[in-house]
Amino acid sequence: MSRQIILALDAMGGDNAPGVVVKGANIARERYPGVRFVFFGHQGKISSLLNTMPKLRDSSEIHHTDEFIPGDMKPSLALRQSKRSSMRLAVESLKEGKVSCVVSAGNTGALMALSKIILGTMKGVDRPAIAGYLPTERGETVMLDLGANVESDAENLVQFAVLGEVFARTVLGVVRPSVGILNVGSEDQKGHENVRDAAARLRDTGLPIDFHGFVEGSDITLGTVDVVVTDGFTGNIALKTAEGTAKMYAAYLRRSLKSSFFSRLGYVLAKRAFSQLREKLDPRKYNGAVLLGLEGIVVKSHGSTDAFGFANAIGVGVDMAQQGFMDTVRHEFDALLHHLIEPSNANQTSMAAIEVV
Amino acid sequence: MSRQIILALDAMGGDNAPGVVVKGANIARERYPGVRFVFFGHQGKISSLLNTMPKLRDSSEIHHTDEFIPGDMKPSLALRQSKRSSMRLAVESLKEGKVSCVVSAGNTGALMALSKIILGTMKGVDRPAIAGYLPTERGETVMLDLGANVESDAENLVQFAVLGEVFARTVLGVVRPSVGILNVGSEDQKGHENVRDAAARLRDTGLPIDFHGFVEGSDITLGTVDVVVTDGFTGNIALKTAEGTAKMYAAYLRRSLKSSFFSRLGYVLAKRAFSQLREKLDPRKYNGAVLLGLEGIVVKSHGSTDAFGFANAIGVGVDMAQQGFMDTVRHEFDALLHHLIEPSNANQTSMAAIEVV
Repeated sequence: MSRQIILALDAMGGDNAPGVVVKGANIARERYPGVRFVFFGHQGKISSLLNTMPKLRDSSEIHHTDEFIPGDMKPSLALRQSKRSSMRLAVESLKEGKVSCVVSAGNTGALMALSKIILGTMKGVDRPAIAGYLPTERGETVMLDLGANVESDAENLVQFAVLGEVFARTVLGVVRPSVGILNVGSEDQKGHENVRDAAARLRDTGLPIDFHGFVEGSDITLGTVDVVVTDGFTGNIALKTAEGTAKMYAAYLRRSLKSSFFSRLGYVLAKRAFSQLREKLDPRKYNGAVLLGLEGIVVKSHGSTDAFGFANAIGVGVDMAQQGFMDTVRHEFDALLHHLIEPSNANQTSMAAIEVV
Repeated sequence: MSRQIILALDAMGGDNAPGVVVKGANIARERYPGVRFVFFGHQGKISSLLNTMPKLRDSSEIHHTDEFIPGDMKPSLALRQSKRSSMRLAVESLKEGKVSCVVSAGNTGALMALSKIILGTMKGVDRPAIAGYLPTERGETVMLDLGANVESDAENLVQFAVLGEVFARTVLGVVRPSVGILNVGSEDQKGHENVRDAAARLRDTGLPIDFHGFVEGSDITLGTVDVVVTDGFTGNIALKTAEGTAKMYAAYLRRSLKSSFFSRLGYVLAKRAFSQLREKLDPRKYNGAVLLGLEGIVVKSHGSTDAFGFANAIGVGVDMAQQGFMDTVRHEFDALLHHLIEPSNANQTSMAAIEVV
């Protein structure tokens, strides 16, 4: 597939904007030749950065605005105010079909709220979710929801499963991703009603998904499945617990290695091994969470990442656009809606579908 | 305080029973001189082990039974059958006041179900919880519920906070433990209703608890608070995610260190540092989860631990018994019930209390 990919970048979102955004785009430009960039933000600041990167400048344009959404602004306020904020204009350009996707390192809640209002939610999706991917002993695993919905019913979880499955196929390139629902045990009767209902639906609706069943917290990093489905409360806590544990482990390792002359010498000798480890578990490599279930591709970068991390978030957006994520996921949801039409109320549902059209 | 501590040990619970149980008791005997042990299980098997440990034999008695509860038996079945199982007899001896606490490495669900039925739940506690402690960058943190209740309302969470606070004081020796509720953000409006209500109650009821507010997943291993309160679904997943992440980190570290001659040499030189790290994060050190909120001290050891791990679970029980955990926690719950009596319905609640008496 060869499509002209154009990225809308919220140049003013994140802790070190616009520097990190522009430098990140420059790294991404080398990785994805032919991709074009539209920077939304302060013309003067962006162009003075672009002047030092002539190749990027040739692949870019700037959409000037003075406004931006602060990182701590409440989403409800971000919706009412900031009509000309860099984030909003970026999302609007996606709505207008001028770009292939949006990447922002700004306020997550505001990005989700604006995207829902401006782009709308996909047919068949009740609530969009945030998906990310993280390292496992076997490779990488997609997890969602990471915090968009603190409560999710069985229907939401089934939809997350479909969204996550398509994401794993298009972005991670897994041919037939296995999907698991996060629970406190693997037996059928474990957990609360929502997860049991969702599992039963995924088992029984005949969807073309490789549904593994329940997985536990330890299965996330084991890489037991390619896609871990959970509500936003649990997913957010699991993700941050994993990040925190990795940091603690690294802190203890550093302390132990500094504890004696021999250990310091050992560290010097094994330096390459430690760099490998650091590289393998580098959080910047896993930067780029995706707002799934929207009528458009919206990627959220971590707010405190650097240019390398931001380039990876751009990469997620490019992969999704190049692989035709939106077409695939729309197709899957048509199939899902079809599967969910039970014989008894098929007619009624069809009529509802017609009304929507 | 000097009390005669007598431990009821379910000698037939766990993957390597009764060997690990008896050997674990022998390690504990050295650490806690004067403590006595009652082994519930197969007389012949236990006494042939004890014959090789004469000092332990002198501090022990055996309560013979052929029956035991298999690790995969459903709790409901364990309640109806196995009337003379080693686990049940151990819990009954605690009920009869013959021992100070019970330690079992057997079926967790069965242990909780039997303990609830035989010992009963403490006044003021609606649902017992499972508490454990885990390593952090600053020391150790107590977390509960780790899986006894997949759903917990605000009232349950407040009770868990009180239980966890007393546990941190008596077992970890923290003078004034800080308590946090696990959530997806630290701001007041974050999370679902249960956590917001529980936080409001802990803030407003004037309980003598150092309530920190909300904590996130990353705060668990940071050691931001001494006690992390959450529902059993989230707690179980957070715990297993942390364990899984530590294992993944260790696996990657091993792989990296084997990758070249220099890194292997470095490993040899820094060997002591790696042993320190392994020791610091040794899961056996954190073995011994406690079933809190019951009318008696019940400790659950990991089923697959070794003698060293089982000795640590015994240590948790000894600490709780020696520090008078039950008296302290009953006192705290009286205070909690007192605080929860609002002026308008104080009379009614007092009458209810009289009825109970």
